[in-house]
Amino acid sequence: MKKYLVVSLFSVFTMLSFGQTQVDSLFISKIANEVLVNGQAYDWLRDLTKNIGHRLSGSQSFNKAVVWGEETMKKAGADVVFLQPCSIPVWQRGNEIVSIISIGDKKIAKKLSAFALGNSVGTDNKPITAEVVAFKNFDEFYANTNKVSGKIVLFNYPFNETLVYTPSAYGDAGKYRRSAASIVAKYGGLAMITRSLSGSQDNFAHTGTMSYNDSFPKIPAFAIGLKDADFLFKQANTSKVKIQLQSSAVLKPDVIGYNVIGELKGTEFPNEYITIGGHLDSWDVGEGAHDDGTGCVHTMEVLRVLKQLGYKPKRTIRFVLFANEENGLRGGLKYADEAQAKNENHIFALESDAGGFTPRGFGFTTSPATLQKMQEWLPLLFPYGTTYLKAGGGGADIGPLQKALGTTLAGYQPDSQRYFDYHHTHNDVFEHVNKRELHLGALNMAALIYLIDKYGL
Amino acid sequence: MKKYLVVSLFSVFTMLSFGQTQVDSLFISKIANEVLVNGQAYDWLRDLTKNIGHRLSGSQSFNKAVVWGEETMKKAGADVVFLQPCSIPVWQRGNEIVSIISIGDKKIAKKLSAFALGNSVGTDNKPITAEVVAFKNFDEFYANTNKVSGKIVLFNYPFNETLVYTPSAYGDAGKYRRSAASIVAKYGGLAMITRSLSGSQDNFAHTGTMSYNDSFPKIPAFAIGLKDADFLFKQANTSKVKIQLQSSAVLKPDVIGYNVIGELKGTEFPNEYITIGGHLDSWDVGEGAHDDGTGCVHTMEVLRVLKQLGYKPKRTIRFVLFANEENGLRGGLKYADEAQAKNENHIFALESDAGGFTPRGFGFTTSPATLQKMQEWLPLLFPYGTTYLKAGGGGADIGPLQKALGTTLAGYQPDSQRYFDYHHTHNDVFEHVNKRELHLGALNMAALIYLIDKYGL
Repeated sequence: MKKYLVVSLFSVFTMLSFGQTQVDSLFISKIANEVLVNGQAYDWLRDLTKNIGHRLSGSQSFNKAVVWGEETMKKAGADVVFLQPCSIPVWQRGNEIVSIISIGDKKIAKKLSAFALGNSVGTDNKPITAEVVAFKNFDEFYANTNKVSGKIVLFNYPFNETLVYTPSAYGDAGKYRRSAASIVAKYGGLAMITRSLSGSQDNFAHTGTMSYNDSFPKIPAFAIGLKDADFLFKQANTSKVKIQLQSSAVLKPDVIGYNVIGELKGTEFPNEYITIGGHLDSWDVGEGAHDDGTGCVHTMEVLRVLKQLGYKPKRTIRFVLFANEENGLRGGLKYADEAQAKNENHIFALESDAGGFTPRGFGFTTSPATLQKMQEWLPLLFPYGTTYLKAGGGGADIGPLQKALGTTLAGYQPDSQRYFDYHHTHNDVFEHVNKRELHLGALNMAALIYLIDKYGL
Repeated sequence: MKKYLVVSLFSVFTMLSFGQTQVDSLFISKIANEVLVNGQAYDWLRDLTKNIGHRLSGSQSFNKAVVWGEETMKKAGADVVFLQPCSIPVWQRGNEIVSIISIGDKKIAKKLSAFALGNSVGTDNKPITAEVVAFKNFDEFYANTNKVSGKIVLFNYPFNETLVYTPSAYGDAGKYRRSAASIVAKYGGLAMITRSLSGSQDNFAHTGTMSYNDSFPKIPAFAIGLKDADFLFKQANTSKVKIQLQSSAVLKPDVIGYNVIGELKGTEFPNEYITIGGHLDSWDVGEGAHDDGTGCVHTMEVLRVLKQLGYKPKRTIRFVLFANEENGLRGGLKYADEAQAKNENHIFALESDAGGFTPRGFGFTTSPATLQKMQEWLPLLFPYGTTYLKAGGGGADIGPLQKALGTTLAGYQPDSQRYFDYHHTHNDVFEHVNKRELHLGALNMAALIYLIDKYGL
């Protein structure tokens, strides 16, 4: 059936008035040339990833990133830059070890590629040793809950490889990372280990946030690399396998963090707001390059190119580096709260949090009529890599705006094939970002923002 | 204007009969699932690149690759596999050094990242030392031909970054690598050095083929890395810079090489041929992964999935691993010659020689009416990443078929942003190929071949 959706998507194209289309086409080609030749996003990303590195909420490096964001936003050309304070959690990983210590009668010492999951409790840095019970999925688990008490539970649910758009596979498998620990605790399990959320060919562990159901004891939760997960699953289904795990992870009291906000003031409708953003925080591993350094530099490159080309927006455009997307969403919540408290009119928000890969399209949360209007712009964007404007999409940080104010949302959807190779790993580093792919993303976002500012919604 | 082409491209879509479209949609989804879950292309590519490596025509490793191709084609399920002999050139690189030895009065010893260009003469492995004259482009060169005699000439013409489709930038800059040596020789230059054909961020040298105009002396030709080219250009335009270069490159007598051909016999129209292919040879650097190991494994994966799904083609489908694309095209020429000699009816040929990246579309050399017919299939392919079917495209190895027999040609056009980062370098290795991107390419090609076989042209 999805084929017919494509046909109907294409069939809605109508020609904008010829003269107007020429003006837009010309301006978008100026945006494209400026970003492709003089774009700063790649150099800014190198600076962020190599001179600051990863930047978990509440860490020293996150604080440095706020200063960096404020300075870079000014360089990019904002009329005004301000910090929006919000309370953010402070989770600290500390040390962690997950090792197989015996298979059957044989003692071994095989250290696994593992991360404590974000917000997980630790083990007070003391070893927990127990037998592993391994399940493919919740169905298998629920059929065998009598085997769980006193054990360490592994879930080895893989990415569904038939889903072309990999965020769908991430959504499908994500429930194990997010919620399995409390389900295991309910039946007396001592700890939960999950297969990393990835379809990669390597053994990097992928961290990410989890949360507890307060009705049950809080048990430590880990993710392990895909090859280790397959090995452990196979062994635990044929032998008695013992694991030792240890973690000094701890959740400390909240501190104050900041959204970094740059603004270009609207010349005609200054009280109508358009937001574009990515998140400044990252996990405490790798360099937070694709997640979400690229979204931050996309955002500031859109600002830079509009300013550089002398564009005077009709509406007020806000460029936002959000705090604490990864393990709390406090930045996005604060931004919406304040917009609501001030009774601001937020007509549109665009988020880039799917990596700095080659453009594919944009997904929207809006009315069918508004979507149809925007789809008329597709021929203007197609030469630069945007191949669809479709229903469904947005982003975690802008979601609260939509809930609070009904704002139309859009998510930048670059090609998704490589994102979950790097996502939340030590391997999410600058070297895996391609300059032209990154800059093509920025130019398509700038073109969309230009069209929305010019024509409204 | 290109915006209107997009509109008109989309507007030609018409609905195939509903029932037929459902059958095709279902079969293509079977192709997709089989390739994404059980595809062998990635493992085959690892085998080719890691166990054989690069494989220049006439080398021992090319001969090994022929044996590998024959075996793998059988594993993939061909009804019959045969080798088609052809005469191929034997160019041997040997050793090569390009060093800056002085800048102004200062003696230095800066070895540049350099390759002799393919088919270039060497220096009999003796050093040539001379001053460098550096030009941006041919215009600058022709305005200063009086400065060329007795010198080594550098051309530092960069990729045009504003061209979104990078093969256009390659085409634009390519004339320096291909033909500048004889132009320099005409004015008495001793050797030619060109900026590598790439828009990358690194300093890898990119080799590639060149040819001589027999009216002038044959002088050695080299390509150097982009950072070295910028450095040398800047220095040579402000100081007297001397270079020493040396190469033992040599062209030896032809030997016999082979196209590897697998076939699925047509059940209804066995005398109508459809060809799909990539080239088995590579440059003698890196591992020839994206160029064109991926085209070879794409080709065999299309064979494998059609066979695996029990598809009985109406027409005879030929799966070809061509010999000697890089420095002679003898395999492609031989294939067309023999087709013509046997008076075969070749209706369609598809080539994959643009890397194993995520799908974007296909480019065709055919009549407007045939293209329009194929464009009706776009909704069937769109869910898997094919976003256009457009005029213009084919491939070097299948080009002779079109010239000889008027065959409709298609080129697989994956996303082009990263191709020229790796192309013809030591960096074109298996590690830069993403399994899912590679397999998405194979499945889109298989779907196109299925539609062409089923509906004819």
